[in-house]
Amino acid sequence: MFACTGYAAETSSAPLAPFSFERRDPGPKDVQIDILYCGVCHSDLHQVRNEWHNTVYPCIPGHEIVGRVTAVGGSVTKFKVGDLAGVGCMVDSCRTCPNCKDGLEQYCDNGFVGTYNGPDKISGGMTFGGYSKAIVVDEDFTLRIPANLDLKGVAPLLCAGITTYSPMRHWNVTKGQKVGVVGLGGLGHMAVKIAHALGAEVYLFTTSPGKAEDAKRLGATGVVLSKDAEAMGKHAESFDFIIDTVSADHDINPYLNAIKRDGTLCQVGAPTDPLKVAAFSVIWKRRQFAGSLIGGIAETQEMLDFCAEHGITSDIEMIAIADIETAYKRMLKSDVKYRFVIDMATMPSAA
Amino acid sequence: MFACTGYAAETSSAPLAPFSFERRDPGPKDVQIDILYCGVCHSDLHQVRNEWHNTVYPCIPGHEIVGRVTAVGGSVTKFKVGDLAGVGCMVDSCRTCPNCKDGLEQYCDNGFVGTYNGPDKISGGMTFGGYSKAIVVDEDFTLRIPANLDLKGVAPLLCAGITTYSPMRHWNVTKGQKVGVVGLGGLGHMAVKIAHALGAEVYLFTTSPGKAEDAKRLGATGVVLSKDAEAMGKHAESFDFIIDTVSADHDINPYLNAIKRDGTLCQVGAPTDPLKVAAFSVIWKRRQFAGSLIGGIAETQEMLDFCAEHGITSDIEMIAIADIETAYKRMLKSDVKYRFVIDMATMPSAA
Repeated sequence: MFACTGYAAETSSAPLAPFSFERRDPGPKDVQIDILYCGVCHSDLHQVRNEWHNTVYPCIPGHEIVGRVTAVGGSVTKFKVGDLAGVGCMVDSCRTCPNCKDGLEQYCDNGFVGTYNGPDKISGGMTFGGYSKAIVVDEDFTLRIPANLDLKGVAPLLCAGITTYSPMRHWNVTKGQKVGVVGLGGLGHMAVKIAHALGAEVYLFTTSPGKAEDAKRLGATGVVLSKDAEAMGKHAESFDFIIDTVSADHDINPYLNAIKRDGTLCQVGAPTDPLKVAAFSVIWKRRQFAGSLIGGIAETQEMLDFCAEHGITSDIEMIAIADIETAYKRMLKSDVKYRFVIDMATMPSAA
Repeated sequence: MFACTGYAAETSSAPLAPFSFERRDPGPKDVQIDILYCGVCHSDLHQVRNEWHNTVYPCIPGHEIVGRVTAVGGSVTKFKVGDLAGVGCMVDSCRTCPNCKDGLEQYCDNGFVGTYNGPDKISGGMTFGGYSKAIVVDEDFTLRIPANLDLKGVAPLLCAGITTYSPMRHWNVTKGQKVGVVGLGGLGHMAVKIAHALGAEVYLFTTSPGKAEDAKRLGATGVVLSKDAEAMGKHAESFDFIIDTVSADHDINPYLNAIKRDGTLCQVGAPTDPLKVAAFSVIWKRRQFAGSLIGGIAETQEMLDFCAEHGITSDIEMIAIADIETAYKRMLKSDVKYRFVIDMATMPSAA
């Protein structure tokens, strides 16, 4: 074991604060990573505030991790000391169920091990995430990071990137298709970039006219104000695929009605209250309302390589770890373009 | 034009009553059919009571029609006088949009012409349905009826049969799959029969323990009481496909959670109020909540041929047309096994 420092919540109402703990020394298949940057995901806040009613304290969040390898176990083949490496939302899974066998560890029948607040099968207790100086992860759950991308903007790809890339690949978004993105936040701005890079004609659905210019800069062909019934009517039954990144309560039926026959609306934002789907929104045109959860490890690597090829990173705002609570407050107001990333050089070396 | 008799509603609150009207003489591509039997669909009642707020009166419902050909136009190639023939929910469509070109006239971008209460492109006014002595339909929207099936039980195949067959084919229900059917009414009992004939292991979800024996007789392997959380838990994440035939308000999340990764819950019943879908019911396991509307003409023919091959008809209760209001009352209480069919020999020859 080695000493490590992180930022942890001790209770659901306590602010994050410096915290000393121990990480395991790397085993034969482990990679030890000095964390350089960690993205700030809305899930981090849900977890530390116990909004999913399953948080074990102390809780160190963070699952958009990039850093540099400082040690590797004897059986590690994919990484060597000095390499860049990334860790996303998972650090382990059962590896034996049909979903794991299919490379879809995120749907592991026995439950994947989350990068934080997951049952640690090796050290016991719960996993501690990326708001920390270092992490030790099995190489099978460690990602190679392309060298040509700006590292700070790569961190959010590990969650926001794969969460939007995976469903677009699953539902075969391709060149010439008309794709909608609902919401322009951390997930939405990645969805616009990736859909554009896949060759789709991308439209942003938003309630904020002020986002039009930025959406176009990110790759959108147009912007549709979702509360403008006439504007929505012009796009009725015309989309091949729409990805909905909004986690606040909202009416999805106008988006369903914008989809053509056999098209899909995929929910990746997770509103607390159930979404109301009119039966005829799906019965007419045989539409599908679906969901998608991050992506498997192999597909996450594919996404990173795709982003490298297309020069895609997240638009980020860098913060010091001491400013995390301020960042959370701003995130709740959607006051960030488009993802906060923690500069881990600002982490104190001891709590 | 020729004189015809039907049973029509004159207002949303009036009972159906004998009604005299005229049908067009068959044009070059038309088939004239003496109606022998017409199934009673819940849609008939919705329409005559104006529950969809679009009914034009007088309204003659009925879209599960079988009969015998009494005349054909000069260009008709598929039918001759004396043949059996069927008509389902559609009598026309634009025939030029992408959906029509794909044989999916039910999703016609310009709106298919319903067998009743549809804008009649040939005679003007609205179409009159199958609660009548005769009907004249373009042969392209007329179905061939296999000779080996009991004709009375064939009528409901034209709506209840195709409505359940089409989604099972679209989502590739095949031998060895585990398929769920929610609700055992007109649609549900057809779904059980068809899924069984497709080789699936079929489970009926119901709130009525009394339906177990009948479900097994119809082809179900087992019955799951949907309000029994323990029973539902035993089937969690195990279904390939579930078809939901219930048109009353109900919670679909337990059914979504019974579906395995990438599986589909297809809604064919149409509750009035929106269905509430928890985001995580679709995000976990990448599930799909979809809908489906009847089926195209070619697929309806395929379904009839499939039913002939497997000896499938609807379980029916025969009524005289004069008893239609009583039948509606019983249908509203689900007091029918499993479809009322009108014996058109009971129709008065003049109103």
